[in-house]
Amino acid sequence: MTEKHEKYVVTPWEVHGNIDYNKLIKDFGTEAIDDKLLGRIKKHTGDLHHLLRRKIFFSHRDMNWLLDEYEKGNKFFLYTGRGPSGNTHLGHIVPWLFTKWLQDKFGAELYFQMTDDEKFLFKQELELEDTNRLAYENALDVIALGFKPGKTFIFSDIDYAKTLYRQALKVAKKLTFSTTKAVFGFQNDSNVGQIFFTSMQSVPAFLPSIMRGHNVPCLIPHAIDQDPHFRITRDILPRLGYYKPAAIHCRFLPGLTVGSKMSASEENTTIYTTDNEDIVKKKIMKYAFSGGQPTIEEHRKKGGNPEIDVPYQWLTFFEEDDAKLKKIHDEYKSGRMLTGEIKQLAVDKINSFLKEHQRKREQARSQLDKFILRD
Amino acid sequence: MTEKHEKYVVTPWEVHGNIDYNKLIKDFGTEAIDDKLLGRIKKHTGDLHHLLRRKIFFSHRDMNWLLDEYEKGNKFFLYTGRGPSGNTHLGHIVPWLFTKWLQDKFGAELYFQMTDDEKFLFKQELELEDTNRLAYENALDVIALGFKPGKTFIFSDIDYAKTLYRQALKVAKKLTFSTTKAVFGFQNDSNVGQIFFTSMQSVPAFLPSIMRGHNVPCLIPHAIDQDPHFRITRDILPRLGYYKPAAIHCRFLPGLTVGSKMSASEENTTIYTTDNEDIVKKKIMKYAFSGGQPTIEEHRKKGGNPEIDVPYQWLTFFEEDDAKLKKIHDEYKSGRMLTGEIKQLAVDKINSFLKEHQRKREQARSQLDKFILRD
Repeated sequence: MTEKHEKYVVTPWEVHGNIDYNKLIKDFGTEAIDDKLLGRIKKHTGDLHHLLRRKIFFSHRDMNWLLDEYEKGNKFFLYTGRGPSGNTHLGHIVPWLFTKWLQDKFGAELYFQMTDDEKFLFKQELELEDTNRLAYENALDVIALGFKPGKTFIFSDIDYAKTLYRQALKVAKKLTFSTTKAVFGFQNDSNVGQIFFTSMQSVPAFLPSIMRGHNVPCLIPHAIDQDPHFRITRDILPRLGYYKPAAIHCRFLPGLTVGSKMSASEENTTIYTTDNEDIVKKKIMKYAFSGGQPTIEEHRKKGGNPEIDVPYQWLTFFEEDDAKLKKIHDEYKSGRMLTGEIKQLAVDKINSFLKEHQRKREQARSQLDKFILRD
Repeated sequence: MTEKHEKYVVTPWEVHGNIDYNKLIKDFGTEAIDDKLLGRIKKHTGDLHHLLRRKIFFSHRDMNWLLDEYEKGNKFFLYTGRGPSGNTHLGHIVPWLFTKWLQDKFGAELYFQMTDDEKFLFKQELELEDTNRLAYENALDVIALGFKPGKTFIFSDIDYAKTLYRQALKVAKKLTFSTTKAVFGFQNDSNVGQIFFTSMQSVPAFLPSIMRGHNVPCLIPHAIDQDPHFRITRDILPRLGYYKPAAIHCRFLPGLTVGSKMSASEENTTIYTTDNEDIVKKKIMKYAFSGGQPTIEEHRKKGGNPEIDVPYQWLTFFEEDDAKLKKIHDEYKSGRMLTGEIKQLAVDKINSFLKEHQRKREQARSQLDKFILRD
């Protein structure tokens, strides 16, 4: 059930190639986000986040059920997470920005899982101490985005294991090796921690129901590659007496080079939240795949191709102003705007975001205790 | 690598039939306990526990290495445990009695694991709340045997999961599904918790080394059916930088009926530590398999067969006095002692043990806190 095509691969541990998102919707069996659903969301939020307007959040499961419940007064909580295998990069931030908006608009609590156990089990070169340390480094990026203390609960699987393991056992008892084999492609040489792990990833989808003593709807905003985990969660939770969690899925922020998602393990495709202004400028100027023409003359004549131009694509993720974005699109496509110019716009946008982010990220160090759940 | 024969089955979850213990030593690849090893133990202990003298503890791994280390001043700790799926019965008590003797003679700390996670995962009908409650009920039986507070640490996997899960991940990363398949016979329909579980059972064999910051030898006294778990432990611990644990293995206390081990799930083959005098008498008189002859006349003439007589076998486990035991053996074999008489001796022995045990077991309720480790 993970998707491997000649042209692209999307699994929880591997994403590359030119992804056909419409085909993913069919293959994964999710639903496209259509204008009707957007209208329904807007009724409650007043406006639509640019990641929704631009269908960067493009797919979902059970959003209509979730809104039915919400309209009956049955509020939902949010659940998302991060596998702490390295520093946070801009690609990770995308679903979190949207999650923050959901928290604000729906007054929802957020449970944020740092799967430091998973990253230890799946990355040969990482020790537990590494992934556990990274969990708290990455948490600074979450907090820096402005999530509400008292409504936002961040936890490392390792440091919250007493609470999580107990619940994970209930999931594990209902999950066979066959199913994990079919969903994740596990084989005889997979380690037994990998095989067990998805049980831990299911827990936050019903933990608040346990804490409150009644069933609470859950919405999981996440990048589409994590869908296989939550297919299992959705299969098992009703058998434990809980709601199936709803989910809303985003595309990947393209990496700087072509055909990649931004990946922490490929440094030159990646901008970290801790990169300084000069590094950001250098990486974008040097590595960002361009939709421009080989020469200025040709570019002025034929124009650039925004669809494949990474700086433009990034602006669709980070430039909130639709009018500004359209102007950039048109200028670039007509050839009036040059490659160097659109790259500079992306540099400026990212650097202005990061300047503020880095300031808040340092402030977050003293705020950690307000957000962290541990046993 | 678990042993299934036509005549008997010995796995961590299933034991029945007429077990050929000499063949088990060959099949499992352990070593028989010989007189040389007994002599070496006696040098340190002064005397030998009757379970050793009678080779009820009959097999071991690396006891000579353990004693080498001990003689160099490198003291070992003890590790054993219990799967809390029901009330404690006399069969469970056997290795614990011996473990208590080892603690006294070698001044060793004991780590006692209650695998309430395992029993939940393997017993369809049990809930977590059941196995977790039973962990503490069973702990009363451990404490009642006189283990030393301050040197004895009892923990439930569920309630000590923060400590244990972190370490279990390190074992799990080095353990493939293939290995668990070969050792335990797991299949596609095994649940993912079962597959992961042995990682948790490995942890107490190196946890004290982590706590003390240096490598500490470990001795695991246990019934032979648990050997498959510790084969895995012994394979993986050196790869994590720890000693292989040594082990010493006992036979099973026979059940009341023939060809059974005492099993908590077969009530009439079993005497629980909480059974009262009348119940013990009734169970032994009614159900204990006899090596006696069908009629008194025939018995007086041919004599009884102590080798297959369950009351006699039980006396070999519980009657510490060799001279008394020999006399019973000879009297019974000659036909001078009748079936009813040897049954009564077993009843008296068990009831006198249980009377004292039950008193101490109730006292243990207020002592639990001195023994329990939790996160």
